[in-house]
Amino acid sequence: MSTEQQLREQQLTERVVASFDGTPDPRLKEVMQALTRHLHAFVREVRLTEAEWQRAIAFLTATGHLTDHRRQEFILLSDVFGVSMQTVTVNNEAYRDATEATVFGPFFVENSPEIPPGGDLAGDAPGQPCWVEGTVTDTDGEPVPGARIEVWEADDAGFYDVQYDDERTAARGHLFSGPDGSFRFWAIVPTPYPIPHDGPVGTLLEATGRSPLRASHLHFMVEAEGLRTLVTHIFVRGDELLDRDSVFGVRDSLIKDFEPQPPGTPAPDGRGLGDRPWTRVRFDIVLAPATSAPGGETR
Amino acid sequence: MSTEQQLREQQLTERVVASFDGTPDPRLKEVMQALTRHLHAFVREVRLTEAEWQRAIAFLTATGHLTDHRRQEFILLSDVFGVSMQTVTVNNEAYRDATEATVFGPFFVENSPEIPPGGDLAGDAPGQPCWVEGTVTDTDGEPVPGARIEVWEADDAGFYDVQYDDERTAARGHLFSGPDGSFRFWAIVPTPYPIPHDGPVGTLLEATGRSPLRASHLHFMVEAEGLRTLVTHIFVRGDELLDRDSVFGVRDSLIKDFEPQPPGTPAPDGRGLGDRPWTRVRFDIVLAPATSAPGGETR
Repeated sequence: MSTEQQLREQQLTERVVASFDGTPDPRLKEVMQALTRHLHAFVREVRLTEAEWQRAIAFLTATGHLTDHRRQEFILLSDVFGVSMQTVTVNNEAYRDATEATVFGPFFVENSPEIPPGGDLAGDAPGQPCWVEGTVTDTDGEPVPGARIEVWEADDAGFYDVQYDDERTAARGHLFSGPDGSFRFWAIVPTPYPIPHDGPVGTLLEATGRSPLRASHLHFMVEAEGLRTLVTHIFVRGDELLDRDSVFGVRDSLIKDFEPQPPGTPAPDGRGLGDRPWTRVRFDIVLAPATSAPGGETR
Repeated sequence: MSTEQQLREQQLTERVVASFDGTPDPRLKEVMQALTRHLHAFVREVRLTEAEWQRAIAFLTATGHLTDHRRQEFILLSDVFGVSMQTVTVNNEAYRDATEATVFGPFFVENSPEIPPGGDLAGDAPGQPCWVEGTVTDTDGEPVPGARIEVWEADDAGFYDVQYDDERTAARGHLFSGPDGSFRFWAIVPTPYPIPHDGPVGTLLEATGRSPLRASHLHFMVEAEGLRTLVTHIFVRGDELLDRDSVFGVRDSLIKDFEPQPPGTPAPDGRGLGDRPWTRVRFDIVLAPATSAPGGETR
């Protein structure tokens, strides 16, 4: 490429960056100028053709038209480029051995039912019973009593309760850690499910040879006074989708041993499961100080 | 930032890049992987907050909802970040003294009326008469006869004919260069107008202290056998908007002297203009070889 051509491209980028110089809000200015530099660097690096630019416009248009209050195709787009997960990552900085965060996802619901310690949050969601136990501690190893532990998951057909035709609540609930920071409850064994893939994002995944499936996971949100709120999942060791989760939510430290129990194995709480198989998993949660979050916010 | 944190962010980016490794089309793979790297670099550099990410999703959603077959808010968005102009720039590489290209814009219409040499393309569009003359040559200085010269512009109220309530054609047309490569025609003096700014893009411009106005310009598209098709504008020297054109279409080499003529000054072709003032401008067009275009395409 000629020096003159390089100069023209560079000058254009600088002209656009300078156009934001008068932005009153310094943070908005910073974000817009950085976005300009990265967008231009992308166009210049790949030598984007005019036909490709038009396809990008058409793709965004289709994504916008599919999006409504029930379907958020732009969030899916952010998810499959790992932009959602990268945003989570920069906002949950590594702090000693604090448990890692992952994506929040679209299926959280406020005001879930409270279950007692050892209770069952499955409701009538179909799935194999799963005993979940662990502790909540801070990064000094001190137990955190009274932490609010919110849990939600899909049933064994891959659906969350909010995707059911009726209004019933299932496979979600919350409980509190005990005086020694421990918790235990019954849930169901998580199974894989696809993100919605009948729109532009699904077309993109297909064109790039990628699967829409998410690795099996159980959602957690853990809140406690003075500590950084943790939004995370646990994943199932051995799941073949771990290294190709469609939204890149997997962290090695979040992969747990879900241990299948043969039918007839006595349950830890004496629950009568007859001849049904069940599974158990341990998840010890470590919360960072609230002051370790960007801006000191907990969520 | 800790080494562990840097590692987490870097590994995530690499994981997303790798997810496109199986893309069958090598060009699609290249574009998706580069897009991933730049998106992630942006998020990491500005430490995008979760609230900012949500505002971005809401902005794109609103942009998609406003877009229909008459209003293309995503193209406007591309325009105001200079992405459209950068795409034009990388697809029209500098070649010797060939005339520079600029943005195509949304107001071109196929099958414009042909006018004879020296004819008037203003139709009934209001505006001051403007005599435009020049030559079409190649980069060896040889005249290009028979080049198709397409011209379109807004009237002095800032509207193109396609924005009128009726179907009439005005301020657009095409003609052909003569045997010596020369051309001349009557148009109207261009005036500034705003890009549509009652949507999300207008909100962005306002929040960043930018004007939606475009510098005054006259659109040209010039086509000739064996030569690279040129899509460009000419701008008015002295226009105060030259350094803040809302879509960054201005190139110094495209700024021309529009010379106001006092009422009563005889017109070059003897046209009777009575006591109306008029203006004249010269635009000498130099076309690059078709083989100098990316892929050798003319358009």
